[in-house]
Amino acid sequence: MLRKCLENVRTKFPLIHNITNYVTVNDVANIILACGASPIMADDIGEVEEITSICNGLNINIGTLNERTIPAMYKAGKKSEELGHVTLLDPVGAGASSLRTNTAAGLMKEIPFTVVRGNMSEIKTLASCGGVSRGVDASAADAVTEENLENCVSMLKDFAKEMHTILAVTGAIDIITDGTDAYVVRNGRGEMGKITGTGCQLSGLMTAYLAANADKPLEAATAAVAAMGVAGEIGWSRMTAGDGNIAYRGKIIDAIYQMDGDTLEKMAKVAKM
Amino acid sequence: MLRKCLENVRTKFPLIHNITNYVTVNDVANIILACGASPIMADDIGEVEEITSICNGLNINIGTLNERTIPAMYKAGKKSEELGHVTLLDPVGAGASSLRTNTAAGLMKEIPFTVVRGNMSEIKTLASCGGVSRGVDASAADAVTEENLENCVSMLKDFAKEMHTILAVTGAIDIITDGTDAYVVRNGRGEMGKITGTGCQLSGLMTAYLAANADKPLEAATAAVAAMGVAGEIGWSRMTAGDGNIAYRGKIIDAIYQMDGDTLEKMAKVAKM
Amino acid sequence: MLRKCLENVRTKFPLIHNITNYVTVNDVANIILACGASPIMADDIGEVEEITSICNGLNINIGTLNERTIPAMYKAGKKSEELGHVTLLDPVGAGASSLRTNTAAGLMKEIPFTVVRGNMSEIKTLASCGGVSRGVDASAADAVTEENLENCVSMLKDFAKEMHTILAVTGAIDIITDGTDAYVVRNGRGEMGKITGTGCQLSGLMTAYLAANADKPLEAATAAVAAMGVAGEIGWSRMTAGDGNIAYRGKIIDAIYQMDGDTLEKMAKVAKM
Repeated sequence: MLRKCLENVRTKFPLIHNITNYVTVNDVANIILACGASPIMADDIGEVEEITSICNGLNINIGTLNERTIPAMYKAGKKSEELGHVTLLDPVGAGASSLRTNTAAGLMKEIPFTVVRGNMSEIKTLASCGGVSRGVDASAADAVTEENLENCVSMLKDFAKEMHTILAVTGAIDIITDGTDAYVVRNGRGEMGKITGTGCQLSGLMTAYLAANADKPLEAATAAVAAMGVAGEIGWSRMTAGDGNIAYRGKIIDAIYQMDGDTLEKMAKVAKM
Repeated sequence: MLRKCLENVRTKFPLIHNITNYVTVNDVANIILACGASPIMADDIGEVEEITSICNGLNINIGTLNERTIPAMYKAGKKSEELGHVTLLDPVGAGASSLRTNTAAGLMKEIPFTVVRGNMSEIKTLASCGGVSRGVDASAADAVTEENLENCVSMLKDFAKEMHTILAVTGAIDIITDGTDAYVVRNGRGEMGKITGTGCQLSGLMTAYLAANADKPLEAATAAVAAMGVAGEIGWSRMTAGDGNIAYRGKIIDAIYQMDGDTLEKMAKVAKM
Repeated sequence: MLRKCLENVRTKFPLIHNITNYVTVNDVANIILACGASPIMADDIGEVEEITSICNGLNINIGTLNERTIPAMYKAGKKSEELGHVTLLDPVGAGASSLRTNTAAGLMKEIPFTVVRGNMSEIKTLASCGGVSRGVDASAADAVTEENLENCVSMLKDFAKEMHTILAVTGAIDIITDGTDAYVVRNGRGEMGKITGTGCQLSGLMTAYLAANADKPLEAATAAVAAMGVAGEIGWSRMTAGDGNIAYRGKIIDAIYQMDGDTLEKMAKVAKM
């Protein structure tokens, strides 16, 4: 499954439309190229429909959203739906401001995203917003651990079912679910959190995997999560004395560039739950 | 010729005004510093005239253009013309949306660019737009090859003549022409296409070369193309096991940083046609 | 003093709100992570107050300012003042356009910045603007040297006193003063000027140091300047043949990532004046 998802990206060379933040945009473009796809960044309302139309998938990331780009996100998303393209939402910072929370929730209401990918706090925020009252306690630790894993999977399955989307929640342990099935991925390293934008990068990578494997989005999303985690492990193994987060950032994307299906299959730690 | 163009950049230390996309802007700034010039990025309509006035050249790149920055491109371009500065257009994605095509065509109509630098598809798009009806077939392969080289050079000469600008068309084989003379450059590597923004970087570098060699723009543009290609070869020779597109990106810019006239002269594969 | 400032960042893990330019924003985010703090970038007027409220410090950098982000800078700055947060201004390019000069001067008038960090030309520009008529000759060399050091320190003390802010002026020799005391730092390398955004990076780093050491801002600003200079020296010592400004950029941030209090204390060249 993983091998095929990776290889389809390299074979089909999908074109991915990204409306994304200006902080990590260069890394997102380069990781999309690294995995074998091709990126276009365009966020003006006057061109997003045309750009989405020539692409195979749309990645909407709300980091550094603004009054100019938010309407463009809606417009691109609706066109993407109309065309039957895969569409991913990365609700960066949902919960940190009402603008972000409301934008993410509003987008989810209007656009049937193939996948919503974020960290547990962002997803919990959207769950409350969406009326899926779950008594999410803001004071509760949001980290997924071996101890609370079963509960987390169950909670996310419920939310995915209600929102009619696949959720990909990443952290120390990653959970990907469509409401019925769930995959758990135990790859990656904590030091990836010391690089800005590894989440954004994964969203770009995942949109490429989804576009090249549109018939099995749950598997494609899982393969992308596993590939990113494996790249984090390979990149770390290439670190030398004195290297820090910038060296690590480069080595992770380079590992995506070099990755083949064998490596992914061998190193991925994916379990179905 | 090449040596002198490179050395003039380091001697004259020109200041380059860039209105460019937020995807590759950091690499553009760093390659301009690497070659011995100095970059300023400014895109607000309230300051572009002043910024252009203190600079020696203007680089307009329409990637991630938007309704706010497009008028600033016109304003800066007109001021640059008024001052007699060198001005370069990089029509990123012309053909991908009408906003991009129309903006590039509109800018070319209003501003006498010293050089327009793009890939063959972008330039063909602009040729059609500009009324230079050439029956460009969208289904035709746009790659310049040894087989179609003569035809491509001839076509580009015609278009350069009509548009009164130098065209620098980059790809596997690069062609630079002012409508009368043409240079063909056979440096670089295909893997450069797996890095986002090598084209944008070349446009920044080329504007620096043009600013420091304003009396011979065709030669300056050619020298910049050759320098970028040579840097692609030097950078590749420094790749180690596991390196990917991020490592390669850095090694190319670092090769520009280290390049001297001797190296450029020795490694450049430039032919006049 | 230096050791404690550095360690407090790692212990307190402050959250830093950045309104900054799109050229160097990724490096700013990564250096903030490297030193042990956490960055948020947000510049829409609809969310800057909320974002500043959940953070511990605010970094305003006017590079690539525009009509949309300028009001957001004012709004965030006022909220930050109201909350008693540390606030830093990096007046990138003050003097290069009236939009930048006026924005920097206007912000300084309305917001009591904890620190203003810039190069000597930018600070001199703001001194003139602020009515501190000092006969600053635009033709005078702005570089701080051992010869003019005493005069520079005295001038900056006067200006800091009048503006009721700490000034951190960086260059070959760095001066940090609150109007009464002054520290002089003699670390770093000239080659750091060949990387875009080392100043922006320092401003981000410094805001993290200020947030974690809010009771002693002069010392915190000085420690950040010293850390950046020491990182420049460590990074340089790790350069290998063929490396250029991109490799150097990465090695500097990586040195911040690896830096401990012992190293900073041992290598810092800080003198009180």
